[in-house]
Amino acid sequence: MVDEIRQIPARVGDLLADGDAGVAAAAEAIARASPSWASIAGRGTSDHAATFGRYLFETLLGMPTGLAAPSVTSVYQASLDWRGGLLVAVSQSGQSPDVIAVVEAARGGGALTIAVTNDVRSELAAAAECVIDCRAGPERSVAATKTYVAELVVIAMLVDRLRPGIGLRPALLRLPTALRKVIEEAEAWLATTRIVTEFASADRALIVSRGYNLATALEVALKLKETTGLFADGFSTADLEHGPVTLAAADVPVLAIRPSGAMGARVDDVLSRLMAAGVEPWSVGAVARVRSRHAAHVPRDHALALDLDLPDPISPAAFVVPGQLLAEAVARRRGLDPDAPRGLAKITRTT
Amino acid sequence: MVDEIRQIPARVGDLLADGDAGVAAAAEAIARASPSWASIAGRGTSDHAATFGRYLFETLLGMPTGLAAPSVTSVYQASLDWRGGLLVAVSQSGQSPDVIAVVEAARGGGALTIAVTNDVRSELAAAAECVIDCRAGPERSVAATKTYVAELVVIAMLVDRLRPGIGLRPALLRLPTALRKVIEEAEAWLATTRIVTEFASADRALIVSRGYNLATALEVALKLKETTGLFADGFSTADLEHGPVTLAAADVPVLAIRPSGAMGARVDDVLSRLMAAGVEPWSVGAVARVRSRHAAHVPRDHALALDLDLPDPISPAAFVVPGQLLAEAVARRRGLDPDAPRGLAKITRTT
Repeated sequence: MVDEIRQIPARVGDLLADGDAGVAAAAEAIARASPSWASIAGRGTSDHAATFGRYLFETLLGMPTGLAAPSVTSVYQASLDWRGGLLVAVSQSGQSPDVIAVVEAARGGGALTIAVTNDVRSELAAAAECVIDCRAGPERSVAATKTYVAELVVIAMLVDRLRPGIGLRPALLRLPTALRKVIEEAEAWLATTRIVTEFASADRALIVSRGYNLATALEVALKLKETTGLFADGFSTADLEHGPVTLAAADVPVLAIRPSGAMGARVDDVLSRLMAAGVEPWSVGAVARVRSRHAAHVPRDHALALDLDLPDPISPAAFVVPGQLLAEAVARRRGLDPDAPRGLAKITRTT
Repeated sequence: MVDEIRQIPARVGDLLADGDAGVAAAAEAIARASPSWASIAGRGTSDHAATFGRYLFETLLGMPTGLAAPSVTSVYQASLDWRGGLLVAVSQSGQSPDVIAVVEAARGGGALTIAVTNDVRSELAAAAECVIDCRAGPERSVAATKTYVAELVVIAMLVDRLRPGIGLRPALLRLPTALRKVIEEAEAWLATTRIVTEFASADRALIVSRGYNLATALEVALKLKETTGLFADGFSTADLEHGPVTLAAADVPVLAIRPSGAMGARVDDVLSRLMAAGVEPWSVGAVARVRSRHAAHVPRDHALALDLDLPDPISPAAFVVPGQLLAEAVARRRGLDPDAPRGLAKITRTT
């Protein structure tokens, strides 16, 4: 798992250098079809890439986008009116039957279908009209890491092709360098703070963020669940306030993924409330440019502030990496093998 | 909280008797606007009513439907292309600023907007083109129970008006009687089995289901979180298999909400896997009509099998009630006041 995390900068560099043709073909198909709404389908880790994609599609393309519920098609066998829609299916293996069923139904029903997958010879790739290769190379660890980052980068490349004017491209080109810096700083932070010890001795944890980085919080929580057995719950800070905030307590470590800009200030406000209640949250993410209540309170060694020069919509590809490394380190500290968690297979075929 | 749960059958009866006019007006507006897709916005408990609504809209209306991400509008201030869409906002209080912001943006952008709320004088009701009153009466407990069921019933009444041919109406009319039976049987089950003791002595729990009743699993998990402090995680059984299944262990109680029909068999398959791993799940829901592996294995006192003559799309309004009563009983067993959980207010205003 750690080897595959360390490959991320190089794999993302290759994807940016060689992946343009597939992205461009999909972008041209979207421009031709001119869909008025989109749906993104994925399971597990790829569902979090789908969550990232819905925020990007809505905020940067202005296209109303939801997450597909595959069972509507695969179990209830409903006939959706797919005309005028775009269906993007995200799957590392391209083998989950329910996601394939959604692509077949959407394509048959008149939607434009695009597969984002790390296996262009998979059944999913064959089912979709356009295929974008994640080019992440073979992933052997059961817990997906480099394929997740590659899925995010593919989605961002697609949005950049559709809206070149918003300037994602320069940020994407800075990403491999930023990812190297993140790995170096995160490994040092994990080695020199008490975060690994604190998470390894807990049995519950809260991972929070909001907006583009909600996907990061959900994905870090899943990595911790898969590899360490920790009951890590991922939440939007907004949903946290509608109930689950009662779970925060001194023996429940909290990790916030801190976005930049206006969303960072919203997350800081919730962290301030938690700190007032006696919780000492950990935080990974953007440097607070404006001195907020949060910046005044979080103990300095609890914050991994990454000065990356990446805009908020690209930051999830970088901010997830410290969380992946945290899960790996907590698993090892607990004497578990993060590459082969109990009861999980690399490819899950839900129907 | 328990008083408000016991009011549910009567409140649902009143809603079915008196609520038709508002539902009919909204259904006529939908028929006139003929939207090609829908988005449903809600926070906390109302987000679970939204989850129920998306399954109903997709399977029974064939209308592609997603859950809104309010921050796209309230924080990122994105301009979505709302033309041709339907936005349904669900809120007990009608006071969450981010949900109101979505309604204003959607209405201004050309979508048909409908508010489902328990306060028809709220700002949300004023912002939307159509308003449907949940008629649940004042709810004093912080943990919403009767307003949640009323939100589900309003959504089902709306779908019934739009597709009278599918026969939801007779099932809705049976609901008050079914709800009385559920309360009686659930209270006896909670009093005579070890489920309250088991949940009260745990610090983590898994609540699982799939399809229409995914909303039920998420809502029961939230009730347990809010009122008992238990780290209860709600999952689709499909997503559970993509990672979180590793969390199931002997000291983590599992409660399955068992749907009827084909979806029930899918959930049973996952329960069989858990039982093979040594977990003894609890189950609330439909009687298994076909003798499955699950029915052969779950200890009889672990299953509350409700013989209600309700179709799967209506069952979430009934199956949530034993979970609400469970949360209340576990809170009391732990010496907590379920009506006023630590750190929560009745109305949450996220921005």
